Amino acid sequence: MGLDDLFDPAGIAVIGASETPGKLGHDAMANAVAFDGPVYPVNPSSEGTLFGERFVGSVGEIDGPVDLALLCIPAPVVPEVLEESGKAGVGAAVVYSGGFAEAGDDGRQRQSRVEALANRYDIAVLGPNTSGFLVPGRTLVCSFVGEVERVESGTVAVIAQSGGVAHALAFQAQSEGYGIAAMVGLGNRVSVGFEEAIRYFDGHPPTDAIALHVEGTTDARGLLETCRAVETPVVAYTVGRTGVDGFAASHTGALTGDWALYRAGFKQYGVPTVPATTTLLDSARTLGSQPRPAGPNVGVVTVQAGPGIIIADRLNAAGVPVPEFDAATADRLSEYLDGLTYAANPVDTGRPSPAFGDVIETVARDSGIDILLVYQLYEPSVGYPTSALESVAEQFDMPVILATDGPEPGVSDAIAPLEAAGVTTVRTPERGADAVIALVEYVRRQRRLQEAQPDG
Amino acid sequence: MGLDDLFDPAGIAVIGASETPGKLGHDAMANAVAFDGPVYPVNPSSEGTLFGERFVGSVGEIDGPVDLALLCIPAPVVPEVLEESGKAGVGAAVVYSGGFAEAGDDGRQRQSRVEALANRYDIAVLGPNTSGFLVPGRTLVCSFVGEVERVESGTVAVIAQSGGVAHALAFQAQSEGYGIAAMVGLGNRVSVGFEEAIRYFDGHPPTDAIALHVEGTTDARGLLETCRAVETPVVAYTVGRTGVDGFAASHTGALTGDWALYRAGFKQYGVPTVPATTTLLDSARTLGSQPRPAGPNVGVVTVQAGPGIIIADRLNAAGVPVPEFDAATADRLSEYLDGLTYAANPVDTGRPSPAFGDVIETVARDSGIDILLVYQLYEPSVGYPTSALESVAEQFDMPVILATDGPEPGVSDAIAPLEAAGVTTVRTPERGADAVIALVEYVRRQRRLQEAQPDG
Repeated sequence: MGLDDLFDPAGIAVIGASETPGKLGHDAMANAVAFDGPVYPVNPSSEGTLFGERFVGSVGEIDGPVDLALLCIPAPVVPEVLEESGKAGVGAAVVYSGGFAEAGDDGRQRQSRVEALANRYDIAVLGPNTSGFLVPGRTLVCSFVGEVERVESGTVAVIAQSGGVAHALAFQAQSEGYGIAAMVGLGNRVSVGFEEAIRYFDGHPPTDAIALHVEGTTDARGLLETCRAVETPVVAYTVGRTGVDGFAASHTGALTGDWALYRAGFKQYGVPTVPATTTLLDSARTLGSQPRPAGPNVGVVTVQAGPGIIIADRLNAAGVPVPEFDAATADRLSEYLDGLTYAANPVDTGRPSPAFGDVIETVARDSGIDILLVYQLYEPSVGYPTSALESVAEQFDMPVILATDGPEPGVSDAIAPLEAAGVTTVRTPERGADAVIALVEYVRRQRRLQEAQPDG
Repeated sequence: MGLDDLFDPAGIAVIGASETPGKLGHDAMANAVAFDGPVYPVNPSSEGTLFGERFVGSVGEIDGPVDLALLCIPAPVVPEVLEESGKAGVGAAVVYSGGFAEAGDDGRQRQSRVEALANRYDIAVLGPNTSGFLVPGRTLVCSFVGEVERVESGTVAVIAQSGGVAHALAFQAQSEGYGIAAMVGLGNRVSVGFEEAIRYFDGHPPTDAIALHVEGTTDARGLLETCRAVETPVVAYTVGRTGVDGFAASHTGALTGDWALYRAGFKQYGVPTVPATTTLLDSARTLGSQPRPAGPNVGVVTVQAGPGIIIADRLNAAGVPVPEFDAATADRLSEYLDGLTYAANPVDTGRPSPAFGDVIETVARDSGIDILLVYQLYEPSVGYPTSALESVAEQFDMPVILATDGPEPGVSDAIAPLEAAGVTTVRTPERGADAVIALVEYVRRQRRLQEAQPDG
């Protein structure tokens, strides 16, 4: 089973395609037609065209390349349609409907049949019980959720146990002006699980980092070993700190794992863990876009003192050092800042002045600083210090993160050139600190891993 | 000293008004002119008009009502201009510039002079060292920050020790389609401190809740007693968990207080505390807009299972009960949901169906449920169950919170009718849970307070 048929197909069949808005087969087709290859609506009881594509009676009658079938049909008919698809040479399928392992004995039996068929016909099945996936770079929108095609192409592959969480993350990225490299909701994981998806996106050129959402899996060790084996940085959001097993089992048919054990496991295998969807995305974007820092020491430059205090406080509380600057840095900062604002770390510049770029570069040049974190309230008349930040990123091969707040749509428009210049931008002081904390956690955990395995 | 001259003036003088964009006196004037009363640019070396208003040579020469002076001038000339303003009968002033108690001995002396003048002339001085304030309902934009006039009118008064944090909060509200009732950055608090501001906004009709940002104050007891005395619910974000005193003192001239003591104090005085700016706003909006629940028990209805698990997990971890439904509720839910999805608490409805409203009402009707929290990924073709949520809010006098994610600008547009219907909307599953946690914390703490003071 290769996942190219799933995530990089030549053509798509939408089985159960429907002319009725609101129906799964309609909404999935509405999204799928954006694909740049052929898309075939399949429905034995429909004629004419749907979104400009001619209806076909069955997957076997399609005259053209079809690697991927989207099964927009009720659970009871899934096995027979999957078999038909397998006979037609389809290599991958998305099964959206629920009514499988999460739904009692009948459901479990049905899922076993699907699994057997997936194996017999070598079909990569995503789901059942998922809202699908998205690869914006290929305009591959295999989800029935409206407007998910608005999510643009980015650098993070979101791999979520829950399709709902996958979509929530994709929309969070969209609403702040970022994109994602891919979004996958695994659902019941009959053949495409964490390991398969992580390995695939490790080799996916647009993907620079992988954001995992994990409720629980029966093969925790396999998941952890895969995270360790891949080159792409992985960050994980583990849910299930408290007893939510009953609900989780009804969801994707898997108990949530022991939360503390997962957290310990990820730590041991080099993966930072985060406590929320927002932090998951911010951290993954940071890990994917920034170089590995030489150490954990953060230099904080802030235009507004209050947010700088919040950031320093949060870094301190997480054990991430905000060290004093060396004497040369302190001297130079006092010159630039006329001694009026705070020249220690964090350095408070006051409202951006012509010296803002010099302050940033001086902090980056400090011998004890490994990571630069800048906070600025966005003012349209002042803008961001893009060239100074870009120059630091280039000269010092150092992670550069800008945390910001400000008027919309101004901020969303203004961050694009910064991101293009290699600076990771994050909203709010706390989220800026949290992204840096995950970056430092990643570097520390990876280092420990390398020390433990001198040959690896 | 009354604060009406500050927050509800008849006219405004912008002292140091300037024609040069980027200068404080220009940017402050650009914002102030939106006010619906007279606004006078004051500058002895300028002639003609600025933003359509004629320059005046000094505050004493203004021919008209001026309650409020915005001092856009360097620190050394602040005392003399403040005295001049006092003689001209001005009752309030904003001092933006730094160079006071946060800046060494000279600064401390200068601040003492300002304080003495404020007392002698009975001027309510906001600052020094602040970026000002904002009352959107009166288009009163006394801040020099660009585009802050985009922040619309809402229900929460933000009172922040830091002007930067105040603006960050205002913009966070704006970027998600909410407004604020007011935003105040206190800065060095020479005469307008926490107590004065809290008391003022307790009596401010548009304000339904107060969001506090606290770094530290020499009069913690006064602050706490004020929070207890006012009727408006207060929620507090205390910064300074770790040693950031050096930086904080350089910021507004006050050490951060002992974080643990503040947290304990707020707990004892009935005020919930939160760990981030985002949570501060979400919690204050919820406290301000929702009725006090009869108890802490949350019924969670979710359209997508994964986010529902996140919410239940987070509520559980915070000690907020997500109890089992009673038998009648469970029976009715099973009917509506065909037994296919999870009918316990949280109840997972699957994609919104015609029964969605019935499910919501059934949960609200459960004898053991005090608070309704719904999660839904927004789909434009489906919309939100506005009428069902509105009907629950009306029928059961119960807090109703909707947590959501989805495509922008769709979500921002679609939440307005929900908010108008009395439902508090919050982004992301975690933030929905956190807002409910603060609401429960508020009710528990207030109850304890009442039990401790049977006469109060």
